[in-house]
Amino acid sequence: MIRTHDAGTLRAEHAGSTVTLAGWVARRRDHGGVAFIDLRDASGTVQVVVRDLESVHGLRAEYCVKVTGEVRVRPEGNENPEIPTGAVEVVVQDLEVLSEAAPLPFPVAEYEPGSVNEEVRLKYRYLDLRREGPAKALRLRSKVNHIIRQVMEENGFLDIETPNLTRSTPEGARDFLVPVRLQPGHWYALPQSPQLFKQLLMVAGMERYYQIARCFRDEDFRADRQPEFTQLDVEMSFADQEDVIALGEKVVSRIWKEVHGVELPSPLPRMTYADAMARYGSDKPDLRFGQELVDLTSYFEGTSFRVFQAEHVGAVVMPGGASQTRRELDAWQDWAKARGAKGLAYVLVDAETGELRGPVAKNLSAEHLAGLAEATGAAGGDAIFFAAGRRTASLELLGAARLEIGRRCSLIDESAWKFLWVVDFPMFEPVEDESGVQTGWTAIHHPFTAPTAECLDTFDKDPASALSNAYDLVLNGSEIGGGSIRIHRRDVQQRAFEAIGLSEDEAQSQFGFLLEAFNYGPPPHGGIALGLDRLVALLGGLESIRDVIAFPKTSTGGDPLTGAPTPITPAQRREAGVDARPKAEAKEAARRAEGEKA
Amino acid sequence: MIRTHDAGTLRAEHAGSTVTLAGWVARRRDHGGVAFIDLRDASGTVQVVVRDLESVHGLRAEYCVKVTGEVRVRPEGNENPEIPTGAVEVVVQDLEVLSEAAPLPFPVAEYEPGSVNEEVRLKYRYLDLRREGPAKALRLRSKVNHIIRQVMEENGFLDIETPNLTRSTPEGARDFLVPVRLQPGHWYALPQSPQLFKQLLMVAGMERYYQIARCFRDEDFRADRQPEFTQLDVEMSFADQEDVIALGEKVVSRIWKEVHGVELPSPLPRMTYADAMARYGSDKPDLRFGQELVDLTSYFEGTSFRVFQAEHVGAVVMPGGASQTRRELDAWQDWAKARGAKGLAYVLVDAETGELRGPVAKNLSAEHLAGLAEATGAAGGDAIFFAAGRRTASLELLGAARLEIGRRCSLIDESAWKFLWVVDFPMFEPVEDESGVQTGWTAIHHPFTAPTAECLDTFDKDPASALSNAYDLVLNGSEIGGGSIRIHRRDVQQRAFEAIGLSEDEAQSQFGFLLEAFNYGPPPHGGIALGLDRLVALLGGLESIRDVIAFPKTSTGGDPLTGAPTPITPAQRREAGVDARPKAEAKEAARRAEGEKA
Repeated sequence: MIRTHDAGTLRAEHAGSTVTLAGWVARRRDHGGVAFIDLRDASGTVQVVVRDLESVHGLRAEYCVKVTGEVRVRPEGNENPEIPTGAVEVVVQDLEVLSEAAPLPFPVAEYEPGSVNEEVRLKYRYLDLRREGPAKALRLRSKVNHIIRQVMEENGFLDIETPNLTRSTPEGARDFLVPVRLQPGHWYALPQSPQLFKQLLMVAGMERYYQIARCFRDEDFRADRQPEFTQLDVEMSFADQEDVIALGEKVVSRIWKEVHGVELPSPLPRMTYADAMARYGSDKPDLRFGQELVDLTSYFEGTSFRVFQAEHVGAVVMPGGASQTRRELDAWQDWAKARGAKGLAYVLVDAETGELRGPVAKNLSAEHLAGLAEATGAAGGDAIFFAAGRRTASLELLGAARLEIGRRCSLIDESAWKFLWVVDFPMFEPVEDESGVQTGWTAIHHPFTAPTAECLDTFDKDPASALSNAYDLVLNGSEIGGGSIRIHRRDVQQRAFEAIGLSEDEAQSQFGFLLEAFNYGPPPHGGIALGLDRLVALLGGLESIRDVIAFPKTSTGGDPLTGAPTPITPAQRREAGVDARPKAEAKEAARRAEGEKA
Repeated sequence: MIRTHDAGTLRAEHAGSTVTLAGWVARRRDHGGVAFIDLRDASGTVQVVVRDLESVHGLRAEYCVKVTGEVRVRPEGNENPEIPTGAVEVVVQDLEVLSEAAPLPFPVAEYEPGSVNEEVRLKYRYLDLRREGPAKALRLRSKVNHIIRQVMEENGFLDIETPNLTRSTPEGARDFLVPVRLQPGHWYALPQSPQLFKQLLMVAGMERYYQIARCFRDEDFRADRQPEFTQLDVEMSFADQEDVIALGEKVVSRIWKEVHGVELPSPLPRMTYADAMARYGSDKPDLRFGQELVDLTSYFEGTSFRVFQAEHVGAVVMPGGASQTRRELDAWQDWAKARGAKGLAYVLVDAETGELRGPVAKNLSAEHLAGLAEATGAAGGDAIFFAAGRRTASLELLGAARLEIGRRCSLIDESAWKFLWVVDFPMFEPVEDESGVQTGWTAIHHPFTAPTAECLDTFDKDPASALSNAYDLVLNGSEIGGGSIRIHRRDVQQRAFEAIGLSEDEAQSQFGFLLEAFNYGPPPHGGIALGLDRLVALLGGLESIRDVIAFPKTSTGGDPLTGAPTPITPAQRREAGVDARPKAEAKEAARRAEGEKA
């Protein structure tokens, strides 16, 4: 190494020794004929004193330098207790500029989150990452990876890589495709997850697999989506739901313990999907605050108010909401409409008299009005928001309103880590045509998700009430992972396919090689995947998953630094075989598959 | 877990306890009204005894079963000392078939390397991996990954992921391309290595980066190439060649120590590129045997034999080679011609008289004949093979002949681990046109490779003798890694580009964003990449890198298991935007780039 010490490690005990440091000029202050330079490297910063100003002529922020000098205790009163090296400084004997820096597009030494436009940050990501916050985020991620691998290793898991150049399925509309130059007309697909491969590894008797796996999904870009993302991917044989959940808990408990010194409860709390929907209107409830939903369906039974003559009537209370202005109350209507609802009915509880006000109140009977505050738990000064209609849609609207209330009323304990397993997911959800008429069922997770033991005999006869052995891990209202026990019995699998109306041919076309593998003594198995980008972002208190990715894409899938993606030249197009069509035979097969799909 | 114990862990001390096991039927022997089943799981195998034959009616190899029974010490004389559980057996009280197995395409319990056609093995990879050898290879790889990560962690390296959806360069003819649905006409490229990103991370001040990185290279498929492969990718700032080499040694030393209990020499031996070529005719010499090349250029100075009036005359000795038949000697000629040489001149040393025989001998002067055995170190009974012509080509031919001699004469110590750093690589190699006329120079490694300190001033004036700070790690004649110290000074970089005739525009087009980054105080840095597929294959004594990849591709890039790659449907083609052309503007740019290239 061209240096003898890391800048951030110097302490009073080093006083008197001559050290060589190498790093970047974070700040420079000239004062009384002396230059004080904050020299930064990966370990931290130390103050460097240059008496020969001539030698640092032109030296600016972010120059890369090597300095040799003597460590000395700072003169009394000049200590800086805010940095670990604040007791000392290095008096320079020799300074060498290793490389110069052009004027910076944004300040590196002063870091304030959000102060620099993200497009600019990403274009100069190599400068952005020199800043304290962004650098810390990548270090945190590296640490998390290491902790995860330790836990997996201690628990006997094998780290196995699965392919990134895989098979496309005609149904895989969200696959990224890759033309194969040496087999023109043929394409690989990038994997959306290692799901099929990890199940094959279970058939292969590997028993305990994990991988920190890159996944690719060609989704419509949204604010916080990335076309490539990373998950901790796990699969276990001869395991049941309890085993997989226990493993998931070991992973997150160790991470939170080692990073934040926080002991998570063990076991982590659980809630059924049904409860989560009923109480929080969400399958990923944020438990950092209360304001649970209230079911008023039977309370309003027999009401003459047409709006409340619905499959479901529910409410959520906004503390202090009665003092909202007319404009604020109108804004709630717009908010609801933006979510596809007709509006958000409300009743205001007068802070002093307890009287119920607002347009809805006029439509309710005296009896219904009288008991409403008690039924909803609303106090004087609160607002009660209602949703009425189809049960799920109503619950979801109230769930969203609850989150909005939590934010607006600052009910959320920002220091809390509220983990929750959501279990007993439905196995299927209805498929509806454009007019809302149900045409069948589809698997909520993937179609290999096993039914619970209780539903094993009935799941296909009564899909509406079939529950699956699927589980999601939720943190502070964000889903950070999910998994399931898989079906490994051929007869059960066949019934599951039939329940979602998947023909034998379609099943073959989509999952043929996995079904073939299941002919050879597949073990019972199940697994989980944790989304590492999200997990690390939450762990680090960061706004976006982009903050924990070294070179993230923007919301349109571009990389401002490298300029990817780019047009390709006609030569590249020819070379890659992009325009080659498969042989007549293959073409015909493709056409047929297309026809079947249409 | 649905079992209480792992099969392979049962010992005499468990006798008397009731256990539940789950795994696969490896073998079944019926004997005296009792079935003896070898039950296999990931931990090993144990013998299970079933007295109720009716209950195991139809039970065949590779059925997945769960058994509950009592462990007992085997009757005297029935112990099997060859397996760790050989002292005990489990007397079954209950056996449940978890899933059945169809008749197997090849035996799983009996493993003999090479006994099953590879295409079939890969098609049924999930059965192949249940076999002892293949399963062991994946376990080994997982262990190596873990060891590597421990070493990197101990040495303060950050595990950072770089993108897999990156920028294509018009020159990157070996990039796999990915159409971007949401930006039709634009494409990502899969990275051939994280090279540019890891250098950006150094500019970003990360200082110590590593990644076990997936790389993609669309090369013409050869026997032991994969379109995707994995490397340990490392980059360090403020480091010199010694630091990177020391780190590389830590990694391999720990792996060999933990896997084989072998202490590698420290430091590992080194050899200059010049020495390696002169003595072994290879930049990756196999040091497991001797038979070094002999330089006879000055020895034959003044010879009247036209063939030996050449830039270089060299020889290698084949011990006992004088007893080869005419047919065997002819085969050597064919061997040489297959390598593009005219033939392989030879002289045979008579085992008894020491007389030199063969067609070449007739052309040599008495004096040259008299001293030849001594000059080459040949003894009676040996053959001396010659190459004469251009120096490099001659050395390479002799180097290949040496390896062939090593194999044919069983000179190679198969138990040896001969590591070697090859250092002081040339910085450039000549570019020749079709008629062999030199038209310029090209970088041997990538064009950011730094010259040695000695060549810093002269490398561009005298490219022929310029040496670089590049190094390869060689094991038993295979290159398992390589790296270099990079150029970080803009003026040096500019001279390096000029030396290889790269214009400013071309440099911008290929490396623009890295050059831009180098404007902002880049640190001195360097790194290395170790090819993990090859490293693990050598470590495990395996023939092919396919043996250490969970789901490898065949030599034509196909996966017999999943059927990848496949044709895509017209709908997929449309959806992915394969046929979209960029806007006129982008198109024009592409056309221009194409024009420039042509």
